[in-house]
Amino acid sequence: MSYADQSADLHRKKQGKLEIQSTFPMENSDDLSIAYTPGVAEPCRLIAADQSQAWDLTIKGRSVAVVTDGSAVLGLGNIGPEAGLPVMEGKAILFKHFANVDAYPICLDTQDVDEIVQAVKWIAPGFGGINLEDISAPRCFEIERRLEEELNIPVMHDDQHGTAIVVLAGLMNALKVVGKKIEDVCVVVAGAGAGGMGIANLLFDAGLKHMAMVDSRGMIAVGRGGMNPYKDELAAHINPEGRTGTLAEALKGADVFIGVSQPGLVDEEMVRSMAAQPIIFALSNPVPEIMPDVAEAAGAAVVATGRSDFPNQVNNVLAFPGIFKGALEARIQTITPAMRVAAASALSKMVPEPTVHKILPSPFDEGVADVVAEAVKRAA
Amino acid sequence: MSYADQSADLHRKKQGKLEIQSTFPMENSDDLSIAYTPGVAEPCRLIAADQSQAWDLTIKGRSVAVVTDGSAVLGLGNIGPEAGLPVMEGKAILFKHFANVDAYPICLDTQDVDEIVQAVKWIAPGFGGINLEDISAPRCFEIERRLEEELNIPVMHDDQHGTAIVVLAGLMNALKVVGKKIEDVCVVVAGAGAGGMGIANLLFDAGLKHMAMVDSRGMIAVGRGGMNPYKDELAAHINPEGRTGTLAEALKGADVFIGVSQPGLVDEEMVRSMAAQPIIFALSNPVPEIMPDVAEAAGAAVVATGRSDFPNQVNNVLAFPGIFKGALEARIQTITPAMRVAAASALSKMVPEPTVHKILPSPFDEGVADVVAEAVKRAA
Repeated sequence: MSYADQSADLHRKKQGKLEIQSTFPMENSDDLSIAYTPGVAEPCRLIAADQSQAWDLTIKGRSVAVVTDGSAVLGLGNIGPEAGLPVMEGKAILFKHFANVDAYPICLDTQDVDEIVQAVKWIAPGFGGINLEDISAPRCFEIERRLEEELNIPVMHDDQHGTAIVVLAGLMNALKVVGKKIEDVCVVVAGAGAGGMGIANLLFDAGLKHMAMVDSRGMIAVGRGGMNPYKDELAAHINPEGRTGTLAEALKGADVFIGVSQPGLVDEEMVRSMAAQPIIFALSNPVPEIMPDVAEAAGAAVVATGRSDFPNQVNNVLAFPGIFKGALEARIQTITPAMRVAAASALSKMVPEPTVHKILPSPFDEGVADVVAEAVKRAA
Repeated sequence: MSYADQSADLHRKKQGKLEIQSTFPMENSDDLSIAYTPGVAEPCRLIAADQSQAWDLTIKGRSVAVVTDGSAVLGLGNIGPEAGLPVMEGKAILFKHFANVDAYPICLDTQDVDEIVQAVKWIAPGFGGINLEDISAPRCFEIERRLEEELNIPVMHDDQHGTAIVVLAGLMNALKVVGKKIEDVCVVVAGAGAGGMGIANLLFDAGLKHMAMVDSRGMIAVGRGGMNPYKDELAAHINPEGRTGTLAEALKGADVFIGVSQPGLVDEEMVRSMAAQPIIFALSNPVPEIMPDVAEAAGAAVVATGRSDFPNQVNNVLAFPGIFKGALEARIQTITPAMRVAAASALSKMVPEPTVHKILPSPFDEGVADVVAEAVKRAA
């Protein structure tokens, strides 16, 4: 049976994936008097006197809201908040399993930027962090920026930064395998949505100097059609000469391709046109921009995908549980670029001797979230 | 050690009372592919095609948001959303323990009626019901009414209706003990906040014909000072002649006193002034309007309090878990007065032979939530 069918069946059998449990005993009237009235008045009073006590005395200190508006769920598009719930529940159980962070899905019945910002601000008191999820670009950029400015708890749009952290970790090791340095290489990113923008920004934070970004109309360039302010800003930085052209043109002589775009976008000829020992991250899921065997046959030195059935899976579950674990433990108010680079670097070092088929740890390796959390806390 | 100290200690040790658990296995890469990508796309697709599938395939069908603005937490007053969180977490674990309903606390950073309504509407897609909690009167009445009108999931302000259902259940049995009928008796309710209003409305729904309600200025009456539209409406109904006066005056010849007000409000003389075999529900917590031994010495036939260390505890945990369990299982859109009366009647019948010291079941009796849930479903 396919994963799809198994998933649908199990979701129906279990009525979703997460449930609430009590950390307190609840067997008799005394237990009730401690967990609830009259005893519960005491932690309430302590928090009323000192609001920061909420971090110690309630779930706030270990909880994250997984917030979506259902506008860009997986590759399924704008399917709405109810239909996004299985992904948000999935996120919540991954938070728990991999980092012991208690996350709860919040699926919003609005897709207006101002309203999403307002809704998240209103529900924030009960949470220690906000994981934005599957919100379409470019709205996601403004929502994240405004919430970061206006809230005193960490906010992260995982589609941007979770993926970017794992891509950077994998790229650090892939570059080690081929003996190149991030400062020297040229990277072509295909896809200028949340994932592409997050990757582009983080690679620059990590020292990259040469990049082209390609969307459905080709290389982004100031003044070209189909740009938004976020593409404009990036284009002004990476493409000051206003170069235009196709993906095939961008790839000529490039060292690295990173696709967060669509199946089959890259062919063998494009791979052959790249610099020696090209690195291919074909992250379109489930069907990559180019299949690994095809890319390798065309000369790719290292190939990564988003799939668990090929080597080098770029899986954001390597990043987000540990990022929030560290942020919650250190009560970090803002997750900075330096923390993201530190997290990527720590992840890459979990594979001390990277090889062509092993540039990233597995999510099931012991201690991944702790390594990431410690890196975030050290960078704070 | 007092309940207060034990509660504060345990809250600190456990960092709050609730945590998230997965209903899915999560041991290896296959599990991940079923719970999360790529498998999770299938339940998403099914819900996108038919939104009602969210009830079967996600936590929505068994989840309740416990929503507060922290404006009227226990007897502590307006202590804010963070300080209300221990109560909301407590509510959530009671939902789980007593009815296997998965509830999550939502503590809102606004006390504006319009904004609370808007916030709840925005977060509603992920929930199967809304339990409003510890929101001050009279704002709570408008918030509940508007949400009931505007949402297609059940909404209940527990401070009004949860308490009222248990009071009615207890009163049915207390009346049986003294051989009186609800149609014939006169009830005096002290306290015109959420609890008092909820009790007043439900007793009328159950057949009561004679009532006086007393607030801090005495009997409510149209045109008296210190009234709000909700008191006006009730006063027009119960007190058409516009009678005014003190609690002591109201109690003369009355059959039943129900206090949701303040410690020590009732003295022995007032009890002695009531009709034969008076019934006293002194629900101010933790210190009742009159202590049970004092009330009994003054001639009270049946005394109930909110405390677990006296007989006849009126505890709303007898009601709310089962009410929402029934509402979720039957996918009820609105919890009606008829359902509340049915729930109270079912609760009262769990004590087939009520006595002076046993008019209500214990929350720890087997099957309480199921009995309430079935009554709600039958009344639907």
